[in-house]
Amino acid sequence: MRVSKMLGERMKEAPKDCVIESHALMIRGGYMKYVSNGSYSLFMPARRITRKIENIIREEMDRIDGQEVLFPVVMPASLWEESGRYTSIGSEMARFTDRSGNPMVLGMTHEEAAVQLARDTAKSYTDFPFMIYQLQTKFRDEPRARGGLIRVREFTMKDAYSFHTSQEDLERYYKRCYDAYVRIYKRAGAKNVVAVKSDSGMMGGAVSHEFMLLSEIGEDTLAICNDCDYKANVEAAECIIDKGKPEEPEAVCEISTPDVKTIEALCNMLHMKAKKLCKAVVYQENDTDDYVVVFIRGDLEVNETKLRNYLGRNIHPATEINEESGIVPGFIGPVNFGGKATVVYDRSVEGGSNLICGANKADTHYTGFNPARDLPSDTTYVDVAKATSGGVCPVCGRHSIKLFKGIEVGNIFQLGTKYTKSMDMTYLDAQGQRQYPIMGCYGIGVGRLCASICQESHDQYGPIWPMPIAPWQVEICNLRRDDEKVNSTAEALYAELEAAGVEVLYDDRDIRPGSMFADADLFGIPVRAVVSPKTCERGVIELTTRDKTIKKDIPIAGAASEIKSLVDELMSMYE
Amino acid sequence: MRVSKMLGERMKEAPKDCVIESHALMIRGGYMKYVSNGSYSLFMPARRITRKIENIIREEMDRIDGQEVLFPVVMPASLWEESGRYTSIGSEMARFTDRSGNPMVLGMTHEEAAVQLARDTAKSYTDFPFMIYQLQTKFRDEPRARGGLIRVREFTMKDAYSFHTSQEDLERYYKRCYDAYVRIYKRAGAKNVVAVKSDSGMMGGAVSHEFMLLSEIGEDTLAICNDCDYKANVEAAECIIDKGKPEEPEAVCEISTPDVKTIEALCNMLHMKAKKLCKAVVYQENDTDDYVVVFIRGDLEVNETKLRNYLGRNIHPATEINEESGIVPGFIGPVNFGGKATVVYDRSVEGGSNLICGANKADTHYTGFNPARDLPSDTTYVDVAKATSGGVCPVCGRHSIKLFKGIEVGNIFQLGTKYTKSMDMTYLDAQGQRQYPIMGCYGIGVGRLCASICQESHDQYGPIWPMPIAPWQVEICNLRRDDEKVNSTAEALYAELEAAGVEVLYDDRDIRPGSMFADADLFGIPVRAVVSPKTCERGVIELTTRDKTIKKDIPIAGAASEIKSLVDELMSMYE
Repeated sequence: MRVSKMLGERMKEAPKDCVIESHALMIRGGYMKYVSNGSYSLFMPARRITRKIENIIREEMDRIDGQEVLFPVVMPASLWEESGRYTSIGSEMARFTDRSGNPMVLGMTHEEAAVQLARDTAKSYTDFPFMIYQLQTKFRDEPRARGGLIRVREFTMKDAYSFHTSQEDLERYYKRCYDAYVRIYKRAGAKNVVAVKSDSGMMGGAVSHEFMLLSEIGEDTLAICNDCDYKANVEAAECIIDKGKPEEPEAVCEISTPDVKTIEALCNMLHMKAKKLCKAVVYQENDTDDYVVVFIRGDLEVNETKLRNYLGRNIHPATEINEESGIVPGFIGPVNFGGKATVVYDRSVEGGSNLICGANKADTHYTGFNPARDLPSDTTYVDVAKATSGGVCPVCGRHSIKLFKGIEVGNIFQLGTKYTKSMDMTYLDAQGQRQYPIMGCYGIGVGRLCASICQESHDQYGPIWPMPIAPWQVEICNLRRDDEKVNSTAEALYAELEAAGVEVLYDDRDIRPGSMFADADLFGIPVRAVVSPKTCERGVIELTTRDKTIKKDIPIAGAASEIKSLVDELMSMYE
Repeated sequence: MRVSKMLGERMKEAPKDCVIESHALMIRGGYMKYVSNGSYSLFMPARRITRKIENIIREEMDRIDGQEVLFPVVMPASLWEESGRYTSIGSEMARFTDRSGNPMVLGMTHEEAAVQLARDTAKSYTDFPFMIYQLQTKFRDEPRARGGLIRVREFTMKDAYSFHTSQEDLERYYKRCYDAYVRIYKRAGAKNVVAVKSDSGMMGGAVSHEFMLLSEIGEDTLAICNDCDYKANVEAAECIIDKGKPEEPEAVCEISTPDVKTIEALCNMLHMKAKKLCKAVVYQENDTDDYVVVFIRGDLEVNETKLRNYLGRNIHPATEINEESGIVPGFIGPVNFGGKATVVYDRSVEGGSNLICGANKADTHYTGFNPARDLPSDTTYVDVAKATSGGVCPVCGRHSIKLFKGIEVGNIFQLGTKYTKSMDMTYLDAQGQRQYPIMGCYGIGVGRLCASICQESHDQYGPIWPMPIAPWQVEICNLRRDDEKVNSTAEALYAELEAAGVEVLYDDRDIRPGSMFADADLFGIPVRAVVSPKTCERGVIELTTRDKTIKKDIPIAGAASEIKSLVDELMSMYE
């Protein structure tokens, strides 16, 4: 491709709304253009990158016996009514009415379509297992589109659905898919991707993993053990409590704490650490506004996802606490609590000694709260605390948890029978009994992976694309079109490389070297061949790599084959 | 791929609503499944076919310097308001409101998006020409979805947009694209595709061609000259009138024709041929219900597209004629016509001699109507008649027009500046003057092409896929899994062919030969290799082609390489 013929321009400055480097570089580099909130058109270089990513994904899905299919983007609402998601999903799902008055939806994911495709066909246990997948456009009406292709409303996604006759078979396949994902990220050149246990959210199902590309700009927080293999999204991470040595229980004692309504103020007043406090956090149920009070150790935060999963209901931080509830804001405590609320005790409270807590009346706290003595013996303690940096690893038991930020670049779910049951997909097992197939589902967002790799692999001048997904493998910079020797050398190299099957971007424009190099940095192509009067004088071409690990002159004669060897070598690093 | 592992089943009978063979065969063959009106999910074999078609299209677009891009499926209504199409297109366009209350549309085509992508970038004449294209999902809320993938609401389309600084440059590129289309159909194995001149419809622009696959089930009618190259959609075909010898004009004479309101009845009563009549056809304008009366020779039909283009307004056949209009239904004639209506005279009336026409009063006609004498000398005659079989070719002038049915499998348009003007895309020419770029656009529906090729290339047992788009190149039928020799021969052949890069569907199921062959016919794979106890006894494999041109035994030893050669040979027929 000749740069002179390519649509798109490179810019010195990014628009002000680009707060993430990859977003700024992909706008500055002429990769994409804003169309509407969370929606972009892709120029040729970005489309080449996403196609390469798509092909890597396709190859790996085929390798684990995936069958590529295609579901519609627009689906009848009736299909989503079958699974119950037409009502359970809110305004994230775009809906419209067709010309005949039928309600339609834009697919956010395709579990329903996968079951619809398979259910009339896979009727016997001998038809299982199988996996079907597609690469296709999705629209999710994200409230917080951000970061260019990192979080958009419209995106291309690989979504895969597997069907099994036993949990063991699902787990075997799940492991194969996990391994395929590891290969996909490696082959695409994403370096710092880790798989973490995750919360399954609206997809349903029990076991799931997210593949996270570690990055400061990530929206997810991960708890990763330094000493063992444990990795989890904090939303799903177990919080292990190191309770320390038990103390001799003191008597419950009322103390006056006028206007001391925060943990910090209380700690300051009593010269205590927050971990000696038992604090209360108040939520309300979304549907009913009923209160939920969580008692948790003063130094910990409530993990709302775990709380939500435990309750089985959606909740939000209480917006106001009315008097009739009997809850006394700022002074809520587990002893003699008489408020109208669902009460949840976090595990961090269990076995605590001589804690300080609210006394359920204004300006008053208790000291000497000992849960084992002061709460009923059948009290249930549950894990609803956020894992913390320096916390205890639930697997190896050491104080080795560290928190990282990550971008979710893929996920895999063991769905179970949620969709096959609700949509009545059954098969006959070997004994002639009707059974519901067990499903798994597996997603990767193509554009987000592209942007995440850019985020991980760039310098201040532009992206540094890994060879397997680079829009082109080699860029030739012709620094003097009007110099006969330079021009003919560059043109000949272009022709030779193309003939050898190397993908070449040829900058044949009549512009200053500085501009050409600035653009080349924005193109981010791994190998660069510079042809100038100086190199020609010396009978060489200057060969560099975008990551600056290689910089050397090579003779013009044989340059094409040497460059091709370098391309092959760089490519092989990702196999 | 092993058939035993593939999702999808073949059926003996198609659902009753399949009135077109390709639709029936693609349902029966397990290629696709109905999801909602005009929308299907594709199983693996169909997805493989459409991917191959997509790749052929992509290669040919790249060959004519196309740059692959990607536009959003969901676009803000504001973009379509710029071009004016948000209001000019009706219920065919799906619309919804996003969570922030912004009106959005689903893209039916992407002229607006193409201009939006290019307009801030291509600012100088040196940036032109260029062509951008995408392969992507479209949704059009078709009122008449039919014929499986022939006419759907959701489909994958290749849409391309070129931008030029002169009409000459557009025409040069248009020709290159025309040639690329010819190659695409050839390479995809579509045999009977012709390019016809077409009406540009809602796309705007002047010159356009449709590529029509000739087929009895086509919805379009084509006028094709037997003697020269002339080909046109009847919607756009000029109707040349052979007026015959002029007769000596007779006087206008009133005749009584009680209750004779149809052309047929009048012909019968007067023993005249319909071509001696001047009939009236009444329309109403869509917006105002105002009447439009067309006078046309009795044996011809009005071409509503040409009439609409001439008027520049949308019309429909009159639903009722009210008395105040002064129009006398059944007896309308051009002499002394006093009705309130726009009057259009077709060219077939010009120069007619001694015609019979209505007298604008009940139960009465005139004979001796001679337009040259009886109509004002400044009367305008326009071509609004449908071309007829046996009619005169507008190019070679012979009576050599034949009418055919065709399926539109592609179209190319010279758009002009309709979109660049309305969306204010300009560039500076060599003289520093602001100019509007001139556009062309070029579409191919992938699924429709797939279904059309099936329609063209099938027998009663199933599709006969051309090698370049066949879901697999070779099918191996293992007729006896439980026979050690048969099984090992078939497995070895499968492994060898796959290793040689041949795409193989391997029917490894334990089913009766009759069922396996019936399924094989529905898979429609060009080359079939049958392994049975009988062939093994003779040390051979039975090799046949789906089109029955080849049937022979080949030795087991060397079978893989012989089959590969046959595949290569069959493939080369389409280059």
